[in-house]
Amino acid sequence: MAAAKGEPLGIVAGGGTVPLYVAEAAAHAGRRVFIIGIDGEADPGIAAYPHEFLKWGQIGRMQALFAEHGVGELVLIGNIRVRPDFSRFKLDLGAIRIVPKVLGLLSSGDNDLLSGVIKLFGQLGYKVIGAHEVAPDLVAREGVLGRRAPAATTRRDVSRAMQAARAIGLIDAGQAAVAVNGRIVALEAAEGTDAMLERVASLRKAGRVKWSGRAGVLAKCAKPQQDLRVDMPTIGLATVKAAAEIGLAGIAVEAGRVMIVDRAEAVKLTDRSEMFIVGQASDREERG
Amino acid sequence: MAAAKGEPLGIVAGGGTVPLYVAEAAAHAGRRVFIIGIDGEADPGIAAYPHEFLKWGQIGRMQALFAEHGVGELVLIGNIRVRPDFSRFKLDLGAIRIVPKVLGLLSSGDNDLLSGVIKLFGQLGYKVIGAHEVAPDLVAREGVLGRRAPAATTRRDVSRAMQAARAIGLIDAGQAAVAVNGRIVALEAAEGTDAMLERVASLRKAGRVKWSGRAGVLAKCAKPQQDLRVDMPTIGLATVKAAAEIGLAGIAVEAGRVMIVDRAEAVKLTDRSEMFIVGQASDREERG
Repeated sequence: MAAAKGEPLGIVAGGGTVPLYVAEAAAHAGRRVFIIGIDGEADPGIAAYPHEFLKWGQIGRMQALFAEHGVGELVLIGNIRVRPDFSRFKLDLGAIRIVPKVLGLLSSGDNDLLSGVIKLFGQLGYKVIGAHEVAPDLVAREGVLGRRAPAATTRRDVSRAMQAARAIGLIDAGQAAVAVNGRIVALEAAEGTDAMLERVASLRKAGRVKWSGRAGVLAKCAKPQQDLRVDMPTIGLATVKAAAEIGLAGIAVEAGRVMIVDRAEAVKLTDRSEMFIVGQASDREERG
Repeated sequence: MAAAKGEPLGIVAGGGTVPLYVAEAAAHAGRRVFIIGIDGEADPGIAAYPHEFLKWGQIGRMQALFAEHGVGELVLIGNIRVRPDFSRFKLDLGAIRIVPKVLGLLSSGDNDLLSGVIKLFGQLGYKVIGAHEVAPDLVAREGVLGRRAPAATTRRDVSRAMQAARAIGLIDAGQAAVAVNGRIVALEAAEGTDAMLERVASLRKAGRVKWSGRAGVLAKCAKPQQDLRVDMPTIGLATVKAAAEIGLAGIAVEAGRVMIVDRAEAVKLTDRSEMFIVGQASDREERG
């Protein structure tokens, strides 16, 4: 954290527990926080910190609150379940001033949208930093994260799934892939990781992909061009649970570039499920 | 066709109409055919040609029939809905001799299975040739195949979807991809092209991927390492119909390496649906 500890960290919080971890990590490092929770998305737990809930579009109010609390540095973090519906925005004066910019953003692709949001906050005078810069523990480190390491027979699937996740990241299509016994069985695009895992479950149920015992690996990587400040890939409990239920042998994530949400719980669940979870170095050459 | 026209062409026929097209093309070129239809898979229409229906595993009988009709050159063609269940094979003496080889094949991956089948037929003394060598018209040629060409705005999606289909082919994961307004929304792996298209339909219905009017492109390519003799990718009426129902603007296939089944009907359907279907050269550099 480059900013003085005296200046509070602003957190614009979507859903899930990650914003709470970020607030906790900042507090732990002796930094005050001020959280703006997005109404209908942010966890009520943010109430443990100085906060306010705002609706989409209350940008003027957000600016006033941040000014009041002396916030110049921001983290934008948490799930947004619904892509904002511009027609239902409660637009305040601050928002109306930037309407043309927002309209332009909403018609763009996901990556453009996110980098546009950062730019927009920059134009409003804020510096956007990554949640991982405040809470580095959120990010997977290299190596085995739980009790188990991948067995020799499964290492091929780690390589295959990582190779696939990187290949689809390079073309800006997705972040996750599943390989089972040397075969790539699913590639993620717009459906997201959890829907991809449901598909693998269906394929196995239908006998289209067969294995016995635990086999196969889910891999997740950041896209090379991904802005990790606002869009770091995450693995959470739901993902680990789904992988366990499908019967996968383990999970591989790109070290330093994928967040593990609720990490203690997630790692415990992999241990209990006799699965592994491993951080793979970004620069490692993967060959199947 | 290198073989003398005097020697009949053997066709081992799975399901669908492609085996009939191959038989027709051979007959049209003045070559006799003898078809072995796989029981429960092959179209009854093969009865228009000298033929016999056999069950999986009747390899001795197949050899006897091919010997009787003087067949040395074979096409293996048509859908196999169910991957053969070895436990239900009706094994004749010819099959029992090759049981160890067949067992080895059935435990291998798809690509290995197919190249193993070719090798096996080779060991039995047959030369396996591709359906496209007998019926070159089955294969998409380069250029616009129907009445419509992709609009300037859609050409980006042709490039994006082709780029994606090639990228996943390179890693031996799948053959097809869908791009809409510059974004890759679906990548095919074990689920197959039609299931991938159903997913795009669901994503659109759920508002996860939005567009109005016709937009977006389905692309299909052969994997670089794919053995086109037994495993050429196909686009059929079902695929065109699904693409039309989803609201895609068109279909791009790799010229010379993708079969269009029921082509006249398929192209007519794209025309009627105000869609395009286009063959893209294999060696063309695609940049989004």
